[in-house]
Amino acid sequence: MTLRFAILGAGRIGQAHARAISATPGAAFVALYEPLEEAAASMAQRYGCDLRSTEEIAASDDIDAVAICTPTDTHADLIETFAKAGKAIFCEKPVDLSATRVREALKTVEETNATLMVGFNRRFDPDFMAVKAAIDAGTVGDVEMVNIISRDPGAPPVSYIKVSGGIFRDMTIHDFDMARWLLGEEPVTVMAQGSNLVDPEIGAAGDWDSVNVILKTASGRQAVISNSRRATYGYDQRIEVHGSKGMASAANRHESTVEVAGAGGYARPPLLNFFMDRYAVAYANEIAAFVKAVVEGAPTPTTGQDGLKALELADAAYESAKTGKAVTLA
Amino acid sequence: MTLRFAILGAGRIGQAHARAISATPGAAFVALYEPLEEAAASMAQRYGCDLRSTEEIAASDDIDAVAICTPTDTHADLIETFAKAGKAIFCEKPVDLSATRVREALKTVEETNATLMVGFNRRFDPDFMAVKAAIDAGTVGDVEMVNIISRDPGAPPVSYIKVSGGIFRDMTIHDFDMARWLLGEEPVTVMAQGSNLVDPEIGAAGDWDSVNVILKTASGRQAVISNSRRATYGYDQRIEVHGSKGMASAANRHESTVEVAGAGGYARPPLLNFFMDRYAVAYANEIAAFVKAVVEGAPTPTTGQDGLKALELADAAYESAKTGKAVTLA
Amino acid sequence: MTLRFAILGAGRIGQAHARAISATPGAAFVALYEPLEEAAASMAQRYGCDLRSTEEIAASDDIDAVAICTPTDTHADLIETFAKAGKAIFCEKPVDLSATRVREALKTVEETNATLMVGFNRRFDPDFMAVKAAIDAGTVGDVEMVNIISRDPGAPPVSYIKVSGGIFRDMTIHDFDMARWLLGEEPVTVMAQGSNLVDPEIGAAGDWDSVNVILKTASGRQAVISNSRRATYGYDQRIEVHGSKGMASAANRHESTVEVAGAGGYARPPLLNFFMDRYAVAYANEIAAFVKAVVEGAPTPTTGQDGLKALELADAAYESAKTGKAVTLA
Amino acid sequence: MTLRFAILGAGRIGQAHARAISATPGAAFVALYEPLEEAAASMAQRYGCDLRSTEEIAASDDIDAVAICTPTDTHADLIETFAKAGKAIFCEKPVDLSATRVREALKTVEETNATLMVGFNRRFDPDFMAVKAAIDAGTVGDVEMVNIISRDPGAPPVSYIKVSGGIFRDMTIHDFDMARWLLGEEPVTVMAQGSNLVDPEIGAAGDWDSVNVILKTASGRQAVISNSRRATYGYDQRIEVHGSKGMASAANRHESTVEVAGAGGYARPPLLNFFMDRYAVAYANEIAAFVKAVVEGAPTPTTGQDGLKALELADAAYESAKTGKAVTLA
Repeated sequence: MTLRFAILGAGRIGQAHARAISATPGAAFVALYEPLEEAAASMAQRYGCDLRSTEEIAASDDIDAVAICTPTDTHADLIETFAKAGKAIFCEKPVDLSATRVREALKTVEETNATLMVGFNRRFDPDFMAVKAAIDAGTVGDVEMVNIISRDPGAPPVSYIKVSGGIFRDMTIHDFDMARWLLGEEPVTVMAQGSNLVDPEIGAAGDWDSVNVILKTASGRQAVISNSRRATYGYDQRIEVHGSKGMASAANRHESTVEVAGAGGYARPPLLNFFMDRYAVAYANEIAAFVKAVVEGAPTPTTGQDGLKALELADAAYESAKTGKAVTLA
Repeated sequence: MTLRFAILGAGRIGQAHARAISATPGAAFVALYEPLEEAAASMAQRYGCDLRSTEEIAASDDIDAVAICTPTDTHADLIETFAKAGKAIFCEKPVDLSATRVREALKTVEETNATLMVGFNRRFDPDFMAVKAAIDAGTVGDVEMVNIISRDPGAPPVSYIKVSGGIFRDMTIHDFDMARWLLGEEPVTVMAQGSNLVDPEIGAAGDWDSVNVILKTASGRQAVISNSRRATYGYDQRIEVHGSKGMASAANRHESTVEVAGAGGYARPPLLNFFMDRYAVAYANEIAAFVKAVVEGAPTPTTGQDGLKALELADAAYESAKTGKAVTLA
Repeated sequence: MTLRFAILGAGRIGQAHARAISATPGAAFVALYEPLEEAAASMAQRYGCDLRSTEEIAASDDIDAVAICTPTDTHADLIETFAKAGKAIFCEKPVDLSATRVREALKTVEETNATLMVGFNRRFDPDFMAVKAAIDAGTVGDVEMVNIISRDPGAPPVSYIKVSGGIFRDMTIHDFDMARWLLGEEPVTVMAQGSNLVDPEIGAAGDWDSVNVILKTASGRQAVISNSRRATYGYDQRIEVHGSKGMASAANRHESTVEVAGAGGYARPPLLNFFMDRYAVAYANEIAAFVKAVVEGAPTPTTGQDGLKALELADAAYESAKTGKAVTLA
Repeated sequence: MTLRFAILGAGRIGQAHARAISATPGAAFVALYEPLEEAAASMAQRYGCDLRSTEEIAASDDIDAVAICTPTDTHADLIETFAKAGKAIFCEKPVDLSATRVREALKTVEETNATLMVGFNRRFDPDFMAVKAAIDAGTVGDVEMVNIISRDPGAPPVSYIKVSGGIFRDMTIHDFDMARWLLGEEPVTVMAQGSNLVDPEIGAAGDWDSVNVILKTASGRQAVISNSRRATYGYDQRIEVHGSKGMASAANRHESTVEVAGAGGYARPPLLNFFMDRYAVAYANEIAAFVKAVVEGAPTPTTGQDGLKALELADAAYESAKTGKAVTLA
């Protein structure tokens, strides 16, 4: 069986998924929805896919699955539409910036018994998967502490910041998902602190650019997340997991393994700078995992609930950073 | 000029300072106070030093400086005694577990115009000094975030825990000092979270064994400290400092640089496990810095105020972990 | 313009180039020659290419270039055939095991003014390219010494060894090419030493499994190559280049960046084990470079002369290892 | 029992051993021979040792052992003198630049049943000892290949070069000893190549500054040694040992573990630059090993034979580099 995809949205992430779907055995990129004519035409030419409206896609017999890569504020509506249309749904994170709206959409997913996978690409990064495998193999023993450092090479434009839902919902949300995944237990208490150090306009827009978060689970496991919108040396993505027996850590990926030494010392190149390069394999693995789950009728490795839980942690972090109080989740 | 020392206390740390003083040009180990006869005799034989009471030392014309290495609850009294006696004072951290008592002792130090250096050995570690030098040279730009991971190889006996003042005053205090030193600005807000994951008896004794702390300065600089009483792979001591231009980090020290590779992969030895080994050079540097300052009549690189400030952060962290609220320092 | 390819040979390396050609913009995989029916059919189905004989390919108007991936003893004949047919030729190394035969084939290439690129894939590895770029940028100064360690995960079957031309012509030939490329000057003297340590059957077949080679250029630059047919920890591929100003080195690629630490120390995974994985990007870059050169009418980055020179060094190494004397090239 | 030492020679290496002897429990630095008055007086004051002639030392009842740290051309005579005088002898490498003269001196050592340890400090470096321990523990299996890279930060003055015996006897001799120690079997064939790339005056003095050597044992084990008188990035000292089960390698020691990252990439400091710093622990271990052996009446870990064997390899390398032929040892 070949899983026939429609992709919604021909932006950067839509293109990434187009590449991944085309390269995945058992998957086919059949149709595209994209309102911008030029972008739509360019992608249609490259991949030989049809151009269709969302209504047409929902009604298409030759479409088994959709990949939702449109702006965030359209995700929940599209999930509901395609859940009702009986399509398997891969949706980019976040489902929505409002937890209430996410719950509504997930209710529809549940009622229609639809398949929904939310795109937390980092779970499919080979390095992070190897950390998770070490945990699952018992190598680190009982998990005690997770340390995540995640720093963007540079801040997005303030226009984006304003609609992003804020750093916790836009950037830290990936780390919340990683923390949940690696802790192996739901965080119930959130402490967070935010600062404006990178770009004063981000502060003027009501957001922070530098944050730290402490999560704690019922049994006392903790995760610490350190985020910044600035990392001059590349896209800084590190995790380490400490347990009763030891630690598993994933290091950064540099542009090359080359080191140059001279009178001034040893020099290595910066990190891969662009999330598409850093997570190229993760994006491919992610789509392959979705395809495999749908074809086998198995649960997807990430779900709408994962999207909701991460958002709830983001909301709690926002409240904690605002009030200076630990926030306990219901 | 040779700085003539009396050492108070022949325990582990007293022995470390005896080694350092003996090896430091311009310093001499003249007298020892140690109530345990056997320990006193052993050290007197090894170093050819006199055995004297604290009263005798205070009255000795041939003693210029004292190194206070006795139990914590005697530090403040001894500082006051030797400040009044006109001796230069090197005192192991902490000055006292009570900030009130510390302030009293520092008042005496101020009134007597005495020299007091508090032993924050990590500031004298060559790796951490190189990080600080990078900051001072402007290499990382304006400091934005400090990340400290500090994990002990194993928990001390609960009998010690009970008199230690708790993890924040006993263990994290080193990291509070490092954070202050590296942030270049006083932290004013403290958030902390504590768990019991390593040894339930530590919890029964009213302490935590796993903590995370977020510090924030007035301008928004942040430091994150991650502590555990467990690190099966050795004494884990890492710092990194992020700024507007980049990052400076100090890595761990392994038992050797050897790596063995085979069918199972690559293996490196554990970290140096014992703080005396890990910080051997730091202890030597620390005494040398004290001797240099006293001989030159210059300010000591660490002071009683540094001891007080670190303790205030520890007190604040304790309160935050208990109440779940950010604590703001006066 | 799209460069239309025929691939000759559907073995492991033919498949690698099929993937690379299909993924390279401006290249198309049009036809395949493969005598084994099953392999031919499988590849035709996967890529939608025609199946043709070599004669048909030579006569095809819709073929611009051929990729020769057949057994070594057919390379020279095929190069001559396709040079005369006016096709651009990409040929896997080696051109032939006999330098005389290589010279004949290159004569035809020259007479027909054909384009011939010999597949030294390592020149297209991003890490090694970064080393070369450091040299070209003057970062290491005048090149003085090149150190190459190249160890295969395991020995090939003796049946292959027997037709391989021996380790110098089969395995070290890659390192000879790297040495020439990095030294920036032709080696003129070769010293080599061979041993049988891995598999006695290799010795029985008249070959070595462990060799070291010293190359020296006219101006005295030296390269050292260390080869073994055994590396239990993966495919070991390292180079370093020393010059008057410093060194540039390329490290190995591990399966992941993950390190696991516990009471026994720190563990990293083995190296990528399979040359197709280790050099996946290199194979893609190599084809892209060939396509670019042909389309632009520019010289190919590697040529038949490169193939010949590397073979001459291999012949000299063989003689040196047999006689115990340094061999000077004409 | 305390082993009472006379040190012969107050130069750089004599001072290193004075420090080591003074710091070694069970050893005492009693007397010094040093013809230069100022150097003698300075050391006598620092260590409180007597100043004596070599004759006086040979006749002294309060001297158990001598450390010969005088110029190379005096070593053999002094060994003979003190062997006859019944003193335990620690002699810096080399015993002599002439193998014939070494054999004579060793004959006297044998006839007098004297204890003679030759100072190959690298065997006592903790990193290299850990490599050796891995071999001895069977971790790498049967040793197959040893790769040694040893590069000096800079060339010595030509005046020194002229009396040094040449690079193989002066510099590579350490690596010959390491190779013998790690191969676990005597090399019987030597191939070597020399160049002048660093300093033309070294060539004018009849020596090389850049050499590579291949050693081979009877069973076919090989060692490759790569030497240069130039390493702008510090004192480059690396070894790796390959065997049937895997590899053990020792990495360099940098000035600190600090890494600084910025827009240009990641930077680490140069290597420890001075052999006294790089091998500080090795020098201390070496003296401790000598003291232990003498006190316990056990064989010393290195002997006069080790000195001779390394010199024979150096002689063979010299001949091979001159003639272009492999040299087989008797």
